[in-house]
Amino acid sequence: MSIVVDLNSDVGESFGNYKIGLDEEVLKYVSSVNIACGWHAGDPVIMDKTIDIAIKNKLGIGAHPGYPDLMGFGRRKMDISLKEARNYTIYQLGALKAFAESKKYKIQHIKLHGAFYNFCSVNYDMAKEVAKGIYDVDKDIIVMGLAGSLMIKAARDVGLKSAEEVFADRAYNADGTLVSRKFQGAVIEDKNLAIQRVIRMVQEGKVKAINGEDINIKADSICVHGDNPEALEFVKLIKRTLEDNNVSIKPLKEFIK
Amino acid sequence: MSIVVDLNSDVGESFGNYKIGLDEEVLKYVSSVNIACGWHAGDPVIMDKTIDIAIKNKLGIGAHPGYPDLMGFGRRKMDISLKEARNYTIYQLGALKAFAESKKYKIQHIKLHGAFYNFCSVNYDMAKEVAKGIYDVDKDIIVMGLAGSLMIKAARDVGLKSAEEVFADRAYNADGTLVSRKFQGAVIEDKNLAIQRVIRMVQEGKVKAINGEDINIKADSICVHGDNPEALEFVKLIKRTLEDNNVSIKPLKEFIK
Amino acid sequence: MSIVVDLNSDVGESFGNYKIGLDEEVLKYVSSVNIACGWHAGDPVIMDKTIDIAIKNKLGIGAHPGYPDLMGFGRRKMDISLKEARNYTIYQLGALKAFAESKKYKIQHIKLHGAFYNFCSVNYDMAKEVAKGIYDVDKDIIVMGLAGSLMIKAARDVGLKSAEEVFADRAYNADGTLVSRKFQGAVIEDKNLAIQRVIRMVQEGKVKAINGEDINIKADSICVHGDNPEALEFVKLIKRTLEDNNVSIKPLKEFIK
Amino acid sequence: MSIVVDLNSDVGESFGNYKIGLDEEVLKYVSSVNIACGWHAGDPVIMDKTIDIAIKNKLGIGAHPGYPDLMGFGRRKMDISLKEARNYTIYQLGALKAFAESKKYKIQHIKLHGAFYNFCSVNYDMAKEVAKGIYDVDKDIIVMGLAGSLMIKAARDVGLKSAEEVFADRAYNADGTLVSRKFQGAVIEDKNLAIQRVIRMVQEGKVKAINGEDINIKADSICVHGDNPEALEFVKLIKRTLEDNNVSIKPLKEFIK
Repeated sequence: MSIVVDLNSDVGESFGNYKIGLDEEVLKYVSSVNIACGWHAGDPVIMDKTIDIAIKNKLGIGAHPGYPDLMGFGRRKMDISLKEARNYTIYQLGALKAFAESKKYKIQHIKLHGAFYNFCSVNYDMAKEVAKGIYDVDKDIIVMGLAGSLMIKAARDVGLKSAEEVFADRAYNADGTLVSRKFQGAVIEDKNLAIQRVIRMVQEGKVKAINGEDINIKADSICVHGDNPEALEFVKLIKRTLEDNNVSIKPLKEFIK
Repeated sequence: MSIVVDLNSDVGESFGNYKIGLDEEVLKYVSSVNIACGWHAGDPVIMDKTIDIAIKNKLGIGAHPGYPDLMGFGRRKMDISLKEARNYTIYQLGALKAFAESKKYKIQHIKLHGAFYNFCSVNYDMAKEVAKGIYDVDKDIIVMGLAGSLMIKAARDVGLKSAEEVFADRAYNADGTLVSRKFQGAVIEDKNLAIQRVIRMVQEGKVKAINGEDINIKADSICVHGDNPEALEFVKLIKRTLEDNNVSIKPLKEFIK
Repeated sequence: MSIVVDLNSDVGESFGNYKIGLDEEVLKYVSSVNIACGWHAGDPVIMDKTIDIAIKNKLGIGAHPGYPDLMGFGRRKMDISLKEARNYTIYQLGALKAFAESKKYKIQHIKLHGAFYNFCSVNYDMAKEVAKGIYDVDKDIIVMGLAGSLMIKAARDVGLKSAEEVFADRAYNADGTLVSRKFQGAVIEDKNLAIQRVIRMVQEGKVKAINGEDINIKADSICVHGDNPEALEFVKLIKRTLEDNNVSIKPLKEFIK
Repeated sequence: MSIVVDLNSDVGESFGNYKIGLDEEVLKYVSSVNIACGWHAGDPVIMDKTIDIAIKNKLGIGAHPGYPDLMGFGRRKMDISLKEARNYTIYQLGALKAFAESKKYKIQHIKLHGAFYNFCSVNYDMAKEVAKGIYDVDKDIIVMGLAGSLMIKAARDVGLKSAEEVFADRAYNADGTLVSRKFQGAVIEDKNLAIQRVIRMVQEGKVKAINGEDINIKADSICVHGDNPEALEFVKLIKRTLEDNNVSIKPLKEFIK
């Protein structure tokens, strides 16, 4: 039986006159995309265009809602309430969903962005409130979240399908959380090592934590970046290596049940 | 055969800590509401709450998209492109639609706001681009626009149902456009005269233009305001007078085909 | 020798079409105003108008910078960096300063808003970075901060004058911090008790903390609100009672050295 | 006697995580910079950093206020009122002025951005209201505007110094206005021709309009761009050619009286 995994990337992060990301390139190599919804990045013209490219490349279309903080790119923690978290998610999901529907497509998944993603990984109450909001809008949407996190648990608890996301270039703590970027060794600089770790996470469901211990990890989707030419080369390398190791790369909807 | 008309009001215009409008009150008297979508007014928490009240009162739920200009409340003309007009509409419509869907309701209609409404009343190209965007999202949505305007024509031309809106307290030019507020007599101050004009527009399909000439006008919906106690009294008076004249007040979806 | 105190209020919090606060009324009773600078509240037209009213009433003019969060009214903690804190303060202070200068007036003081105020009360690093930014713009500006807080200490450490602010309607912990609104008894509901506490803070420099212990507190300025008619009555009552107790109410610049 | 001219460029247009412009490079070649003030582009961190680079390169520091339209980069006409125009200008000018003052520098000039610049070139009432606002803040600031435009006239009428700006790569109508980009020939693609036109504008005060007629034009400052490597090469070429023709390049403050 062949192993399947999804490759995802955050795209559609340009805004008005501002361009970020080599979207047209990176969308050729991934299987799913997380499209910014106009709050931390993205605008309606970009959203419309990005969905067009995703459709052309037969990718799974995902909403990527963030905090209302364009100046901070959604990377700064904001103390929003549970009700705000739920409604901010519905708002952004709905906006992207309308663009997909205008082209006769559906939203495959949703992945929170930046500080919102991080907080819902560790705060069950907020994760559940967000998950309930998503369920109320469309119970077929898959929730992508940090592998093993409370976002995944919350999604399942409310009856949504979930996809566990792993990072090729990040070190893990023994409890499955990511090592904070504040600490030495948080980012795996050695590309070959990063690739080997990805292959092992996908094939064996294991990764070596920063303390040397082997931990279990489920890899439904691998997060990759398309910010610059070097990042793009790494995406190509991951894709090629996975395929050379008999791993199929497919959008989540084709294998997440 | 009884005559039917819709009473509509712009609601959900509060934002964060800022409150505008006696929404809880005015929603008791109208049959349809135009809910701000977070750009010129409104925010996700307000949108969610306003739909709840609309549902409780069995009102038709409408999206009310505007220019991206919270500081100007969407009342200042902005030179946006056709593509921007289309995508800004889809974005805001989609956001509100998700809130309605999260409660198992549908969007009944859409009405543009302020300067966006005014421009699409007189610019066919933009009106058509907007109408096509709405059609692509959901072809059952009714477009509410200024009676006799190019927005109404554009909606029909793309295959959407339309609802012609009249104003109780505004003077009309002989060509059916509203007299600009810059000119004397633009606003009908005499409440009894305003009511009589409304009754005549609804029953006879006619109104006296500012030059004294009688013109034809179709009144599918009457716009009323709930900004202050006095405005609210006027809404009650219109409603009572219409009913006393055997005019039924119903949401658009019950009579617009 | 007579005792002197300043009465301050947050004003100019309207935004575009949105109105908050009975500014024209409350400005008749206070001696200093903290004017919102367009980020968490306020806009350039409101700032210009509010300074005019402040000048007419001979009040001390203060800048009231907040987080970039209009939707949350600056009340939600945002994890901004030290550099951002400094530059966001300079930006907002500069904007208000230009309006004051355009009328030949100077900025008397600066008081941070909401969650920014709270964080700088307890985080010395950020408070000092903000204070250094203010000093670099104008070393004669007085920093108003929570009595006994790290904001006051930071202001002094960089060479700025400071004004310690007390709250009539809030309970204090034994360490001089405010009891969080999450806890019972955080707000003093009994108006007479609130007034008595204010008088004692001003005259004796003492207040009874929530644990019953008497603590020292310095009251250079008393914060009052003008959000509604009831709040306004309380402002009048405080002012009258202070004057009846031989306390003079004057802008900070007249007595802070 | 040697001829003097200023070379100016719009800089500081990045925003948060978004980068625009080769600022560090282009600032080596120009003599004055127009720094975005956070409304159509720029943010406080960028403003602070851009002024530092300007100071290091001994450039004239200018404020570059625009419409409140980040999504449209200030390029879309907005129907703001005279009062809004004045106050939006004071706000943005004040914000930048505080950053300059925090480093013991002064604002040399102000140049409106995009659609705001264009409108004030042809609308005397708004140009004058803006000019009065600038005068009230600091009467020593030089107003840079389109050569021969109503902005220049308005600045002089209120008692401000003015600097007439010319464009190397744009065609002129016979009345001195720029040929709209909608028309063929609006942009001078031939770099050598563009350079020759600049030299002639600077040395003879004349330029050939699009109808073939020679018209008078005063060139106090030449606008150049640093958006991409090619633009940067053109800046170097203009600078070198001007110097080879015995034209000195200096900040406005050194020669505008």
